[in-house]
Amino acid sequence: MDQTSAFLPGPRLHIAGAASGPLAGLTFAAKDLFDVAGHPTGGGNPDWPRVHPVPTRHAWAVQTLLDAGATLVGKTVTDEVSLGILGENAFDGTPVNPAAPGRVPGGSSSGSASAVAAGLCDTALGTDTGGSVRVPASFCGLFGIRPTPGRVPVTGMAAQAPSSDTTGWFARDGATFAKVSAIMLGEAIPDALPTRLLRATDAFGFADPAVAAALAPMVARLERLISAAQDEIMAPPGLSVWARAQRTLQPVEAWETFRPWVETHNPRFAFNVARGLVTAAATPAADCEWAELMRQEARGRLAYLLPSGTILCLPTTPFPAPKVGLPLPVLDPIRARIACLCGQGGLAGHPQVSLPGGLVDGLPVGLSIIGARGADAALVAVARALG
Amino acid sequence: MDQTSAFLPGPRLHIAGAASGPLAGLTFAAKDLFDVAGHPTGGGNPDWPRVHPVPTRHAWAVQTLLDAGATLVGKTVTDEVSLGILGENAFDGTPVNPAAPGRVPGGSSSGSASAVAAGLCDTALGTDTGGSVRVPASFCGLFGIRPTPGRVPVTGMAAQAPSSDTTGWFARDGATFAKVSAIMLGEAIPDALPTRLLRATDAFGFADPAVAAALAPMVARLERLISAAQDEIMAPPGLSVWARAQRTLQPVEAWETFRPWVETHNPRFAFNVARGLVTAAATPAADCEWAELMRQEARGRLAYLLPSGTILCLPTTPFPAPKVGLPLPVLDPIRARIACLCGQGGLAGHPQVSLPGGLVDGLPVGLSIIGARGADAALVAVARALG
Repeated sequence: MDQTSAFLPGPRLHIAGAASGPLAGLTFAAKDLFDVAGHPTGGGNPDWPRVHPVPTRHAWAVQTLLDAGATLVGKTVTDEVSLGILGENAFDGTPVNPAAPGRVPGGSSSGSASAVAAGLCDTALGTDTGGSVRVPASFCGLFGIRPTPGRVPVTGMAAQAPSSDTTGWFARDGATFAKVSAIMLGEAIPDALPTRLLRATDAFGFADPAVAAALAPMVARLERLISAAQDEIMAPPGLSVWARAQRTLQPVEAWETFRPWVETHNPRFAFNVARGLVTAAATPAADCEWAELMRQEARGRLAYLLPSGTILCLPTTPFPAPKVGLPLPVLDPIRARIACLCGQGGLAGHPQVSLPGGLVDGLPVGLSIIGARGADAALVAVARALG
Repeated sequence: MDQTSAFLPGPRLHIAGAASGPLAGLTFAAKDLFDVAGHPTGGGNPDWPRVHPVPTRHAWAVQTLLDAGATLVGKTVTDEVSLGILGENAFDGTPVNPAAPGRVPGGSSSGSASAVAAGLCDTALGTDTGGSVRVPASFCGLFGIRPTPGRVPVTGMAAQAPSSDTTGWFARDGATFAKVSAIMLGEAIPDALPTRLLRATDAFGFADPAVAAALAPMVARLERLISAAQDEIMAPPGLSVWARAQRTLQPVEAWETFRPWVETHNPRFAFNVARGLVTAAATPAADCEWAELMRQEARGRLAYLLPSGTILCLPTTPFPAPKVGLPLPVLDPIRARIACLCGQGGLAGHPQVSLPGGLVDGLPVGLSIIGARGADAALVAVARALG
């Protein structure tokens, strides 16, 4: 399917924000998993709105941005019910990646990232369960946040795997990112910065060598900003082991979420999306039990590594955006490698910000910083200082 | 999705048959798995024609009917790439069952059966791999044939599981069925009838008691027609064991057929269709090896039971057509039970004719007769004598 606009087809939504407010003059878009009163929530799948009534209230995130003065200018394409990491939707198409023509935008918040990167709006709402804000931020050269789970209400946002679901957002520059973040977090962005930086040697080693090299100047800037820096292994059992645990728990939880809909309505899906649900439905309970134990270990590890005042940096993705339209046998290992750098998000529940980290052959790739649970604003402060 | 017409939407095809010929004056339709020159073969899936060029020649079956004087009046809805037994297509809808309103027509030759049953054409082409002519014939109250594999060329017909694929056809009455069959088989339908009838006690016992009761008068007519009759077990290991073998071999072979398309294009499917392919792709080789051995046993059993001159009768389906729109947890065991009565077709490769057998609460159900390999015309002769 050809690449498409970031926005859903049809007449463009336009809902003016409050006349005054800290975000007055800014525009935003919302991934089509967020409710907008009076408009169906499409969920990126033709059979989703058929069984979900048109919402009568805005999602919390939409209402919060409107109340702060930002104007909603559209709803954006998403991977099917957020089950995707690359941004290729077999029904709605693949939004263009303005920073990397011919490449995927990343997903599942594909249209939101595409719209911000193209300058069609100032910020956009996304969701991140297994990387759905972080990956498109990396591929499109944007600032993007996966907050601490529970930090930002998910009311009115379609669920996938509730224990990992978060509401995130994108911006092109650090100043706008900080302004929007202050509203969404309900908290001023501090001037003081963290005082200790960890470099995740396992994650840098796992990324393509060209990515580690491209990120080096931005890591050096981080080091100059923060007084102490040292190397650390983020995931001693292995990034792939953490990813395996997350890729066990998240799909099984997603199957629990979607099972009533799937079994009652036998909806249409792209083959690989259905395949993920089928595989999840067949996951042995013993695998889930192990994955829960590994989740406990991951939480313990990140809590140990990241006391208040410490942040850890890593490449957001192991490579820049892949080409559009690759066959499944090529894409499957690509998705698996991405999960190795994103798995800690859903697994351990620490906040993560991806910021434009550098270019590999002209293609953007993100640098991520992770902080203590609840230290979302501190990460934004670092992003603003670098942006 | 609402129930739809038997025919594909859009302008109706019309290709006049030869001016004279044994089928002059008859009309026919072709399941959308058969090539019609100059028209895309849709295959019941929106992503199938995208990768299959518009055919430049008619399928063998289409050309044969045209040459005999029949006129093509349309292409009909099919389950996605023939992967279905009930006739519910999530993209194209569920063709009405004129004989059983509110019920499925059966599939995958759903539209062909629906069109013939509604009187929209005199005969229609279908395909039968695991029951795709026999089941809709039973549910719609029609005559339908699954020929001996290899007996009728499948050129220009989309493959599913080549070792089980056959080209079949439907008619409302025995006389028309025999006229069309003589052309398709290239052989006169004999006046002499088989001389020995077997009643498959395991199959009658497996069907709903109401079905066995409804079929009893037609079985009695068969017994009067044929000099000797006796009870026999068709499948000594169990109908469910034969079905298990067929439901192992057929999906694995179908996955081999569709895998290049699926892996390259990641097509859209209804969830349950994708689920079948995913399950097939994960089938252990040892299961296939066992199923091949059981296929050998089934072939031996039917060759023993069915020498030339002997036919065996059984219910085509264990129940009449189920309601439209049932949820998957209800449909899955329905499909599994149907497979127990249809499995011998693909497994052993004997020809089978389903004819209108009786009514259960006003809903049709078919009686099937199976003969020696190659004795297709003898089965048609019996159907004509009963029809």
